[in-house]
Amino acid sequence: MYVLAINFKSYKTSYGSRALSIAKEADSVAREYSGLVRVVLLPPATEIVRIASAVSFSSVFAQHVDPVDEGAYTGHVTAEMIKEAGAAGIMINHSEKRLRIDEISFILGKARKLGLETLVCADTPEVAAAISVLSPHMLAIEPPELIGTGIPVSKAKPEVVTGTVNKVRELNKEVLILTGAGITTGDDVKAAIRLGTQGVLVASAVMKAQEPSKIIKEMTESLIKALDSLPPALQDGGEGLNA
Amino acid sequence: MYVLAINFKSYKTSYGSRALSIAKEADSVAREYSGLVRVVLLPPATEIVRIASAVSFSSVFAQHVDPVDEGAYTGHVTAEMIKEAGAAGIMINHSEKRLRIDEISFILGKARKLGLETLVCADTPEVAAAISVLSPHMLAIEPPELIGTGIPVSKAKPEVVTGTVNKVRELNKEVLILTGAGITTGDDVKAAIRLGTQGVLVASAVMKAQEPSKIIKEMTESLIKALDSLPPALQDGGEGLNA
Amino acid sequence: MYVLAINFKSYKTSYGSRALSIAKEADSVAREYSGLVRVVLLPPATEIVRIASAVSFSSVFAQHVDPVDEGAYTGHVTAEMIKEAGAAGIMINHSEKRLRIDEISFILGKARKLGLETLVCADTPEVAAAISVLSPHMLAIEPPELIGTGIPVSKAKPEVVTGTVNKVRELNKEVLILTGAGITTGDDVKAAIRLGTQGVLVASAVMKAQEPSKIIKEMTESLIKALDSLPPALQDGGEGLNA
Amino acid sequence: MYVLAINFKSYKTSYGSRALSIAKEADSVAREYSGLVRVVLLPPATEIVRIASAVSFSSVFAQHVDPVDEGAYTGHVTAEMIKEAGAAGIMINHSEKRLRIDEISFILGKARKLGLETLVCADTPEVAAAISVLSPHMLAIEPPELIGTGIPVSKAKPEVVTGTVNKVRELNKEVLILTGAGITTGDDVKAAIRLGTQGVLVASAVMKAQEPSKIIKEMTESLIKALDSLPPALQDGGEGLNA
Repeated sequence: MYVLAINFKSYKTSYGSRALSIAKEADSVAREYSGLVRVVLLPPATEIVRIASAVSFSSVFAQHVDPVDEGAYTGHVTAEMIKEAGAAGIMINHSEKRLRIDEISFILGKARKLGLETLVCADTPEVAAAISVLSPHMLAIEPPELIGTGIPVSKAKPEVVTGTVNKVRELNKEVLILTGAGITTGDDVKAAIRLGTQGVLVASAVMKAQEPSKIIKEMTESLIKALDSLPPALQDGGEGLNA
Repeated sequence: MYVLAINFKSYKTSYGSRALSIAKEADSVAREYSGLVRVVLLPPATEIVRIASAVSFSSVFAQHVDPVDEGAYTGHVTAEMIKEAGAAGIMINHSEKRLRIDEISFILGKARKLGLETLVCADTPEVAAAISVLSPHMLAIEPPELIGTGIPVSKAKPEVVTGTVNKVRELNKEVLILTGAGITTGDDVKAAIRLGTQGVLVASAVMKAQEPSKIIKEMTESLIKALDSLPPALQDGGEGLNA
Repeated sequence: MYVLAINFKSYKTSYGSRALSIAKEADSVAREYSGLVRVVLLPPATEIVRIASAVSFSSVFAQHVDPVDEGAYTGHVTAEMIKEAGAAGIMINHSEKRLRIDEISFILGKARKLGLETLVCADTPEVAAAISVLSPHMLAIEPPELIGTGIPVSKAKPEVVTGTVNKVRELNKEVLILTGAGITTGDDVKAAIRLGTQGVLVASAVMKAQEPSKIIKEMTESLIKALDSLPPALQDGGEGLNA
Repeated sequence: MYVLAINFKSYKTSYGSRALSIAKEADSVAREYSGLVRVVLLPPATEIVRIASAVSFSSVFAQHVDPVDEGAYTGHVTAEMIKEAGAAGIMINHSEKRLRIDEISFILGKARKLGLETLVCADTPEVAAAISVLSPHMLAIEPPELIGTGIPVSKAKPEVVTGTVNKVRELNKEVLILTGAGITTGDDVKAAIRLGTQGVLVASAVMKAQEPSKIIKEMTESLIKALDSLPPALQDGGEGLNA
């Protein structure tokens, strides 16, 4: 099952009623294509409670958690908190919130104990390979210089995506690999799948859209078409990774 | 009006149903002493929505906000978000989440525009004085080495509290000054008031208590008694600061 | 005595023989105008030993020190180290190396004990005012958005410079105020003095110049001319600040 | 050839004449056992020039470099600077100066281009394995909780050392693995070798010693004895790793 992950970031649309409405629209697409595409919503920490309780067919992930256990930590967001708020997983190490390697390892260990899924971002094939050794559930490859540009990495730097797939697959057969940075259209999504990844991580294309539901639907359908157009062996491969 | 500010931090009791129950207990004390003592609750970011909608007589402040405007910021908690979630104010620069001086200035400016109240922590009289120039609504003086020890700064280092009051009052007549770090009992609260501050910032004493409502009540009553025992001129002064 | 402070940063010219040669050229200008203008050189940490032992008429300041005492700190540069290496002072809180307010206060305290001079950078009049309460020897006002642009703050945002002078002078009569960001020509230097500051902090204009000695000389002479053209009372004022 | 790496940190003895004298003593041991043990000295950035020019049989590494290229970076120490100052390599990611995974990857890439050797620290076998994918020359395993305690990791947590060797060797056959944290005596050094690592990273045991030269000699001789006592096949293995 391919993945459409929507990073809400901190836009005007990322919180409050607009965020809730985007989440509900995405959830209704997720319902329509249930069993075919997995929709992951990444709202800000303050919105997890409201969005997690409003959606049924999508998964809610935190955009980040701090690398600490429970204790005397002021102003922190912990894995325990976001789980309690209704999140099923966490994203970490986005280029706008990088972590140290020991912190990534610490959080992945905690998430495992708490039963939270994990998505870790990486900026290069080398870093993606190093992180894959720590066994997250998903990896997103995002060259930071393309984030928010509307120039999809799959077009501008396809070798970054294929290089990531090659290097990571030598070390880790199971991690789902997502393509991020500049993914704007259904075509970008297809290209991401054609390059060997299992989904996309998007942000501004949805959050800044006039009609978020339209682009969510377009991307979801592109994921499904991309899956259909793969040779049967690879389709199984794709499924296998998600089983 | 004196202030009892309760920093929830990231304890086991800081989120979910236990946090909600502490917030409600505090709110019921706030109702009882309404008009005499102001109760400020500082839950984690994920809990602001639930706690803000559950209390009526207390103010909810965020424990921290990130020094950014709306935009492409992943994993950030902004002033806009916590306001939308129901917070009336923000605390910043706690010793467990220090900020740079330019970031403090930036956040105070944003809070002013958004109509949010502000509480800034400081570790020494010198730092408190520097921050007071930036005109927050409240300042808390907390020597980091005493935080969480149960040894009240008002006993261990009364000169830090009086030094803060003296230095700050030369520069800023209006900011409310709170005593933090090690405040555990009603007596600690009285000492804080006697040293010239207008309230206390507490955390573990409440969050780790067997009966949080008991210690909240004890501290609140100590604030009221401390106020009563001041000479009338100073009582007015105290009121004046809050008017 | 007015100040010409040259921040070497981390350019190709900032270390090794090119850095040494710029330092010697600056020192020879400092010798020529000795008693009239003070030249402060800010090489990288690795170059302090070599540059401090090669100059006689300029002062060497570190570009930054870490906010720690002696101890188990790996990869840190402490105030003790740079003093031993031959520095007479330290700059801190440059926009490319910001510090927390408690760290600024800590380092200023250490520098006082070690007999090191201090120069603290600020991005806005408000932040400059807050820092001035901590009594550094010098303050530099540098709007970060103008740094390295060649657009002098004295032209683009004169109100930032005059606002800084006004706010700081209410709180601190003694700190020397330097104008930074975009200072490129002798005229920029004159404008900085005319706006009420006591010198300039420059970087790329010197470090990237074809002939560094030429621009150093031009800026130094502009400082002297600016001083001459002030009414006698203000000239004394300028002197008084440096006495 | 086994490795004795001495991290000078920021102690009273870490800079100036005392640091120079420790460096010279270490260098004289390095001369005595030249070809058998490699001595790596890690002075603070300010001391690299002086120490690199004073030693002949040891290698000088920086304790840290900042993850930036040449440019407008104030207060940074770059790989170019420390190379020019005479360093042959760099250590990064010590527990007292951790880096993000993308920064580690960036610095390793730069070091490769500049011809600098690299030593990367890790806190756990998992993190060591992830870093080994990025191909540093040396890795040091140091559980932070043992650093500076005098309790050698080889005794307190031998499974951390053997776990590191096992996990890293699955991914990288060539990286030298050093044991760090709490190494105090010649016996600790022997234990480190017996557990399968190729040397030690020490700090306080040397830097705080009454007679640094004595403990340097003791550790060096222990490395040689440990090598002698290995079965011939493993001796070759040890050599092979360093060839």
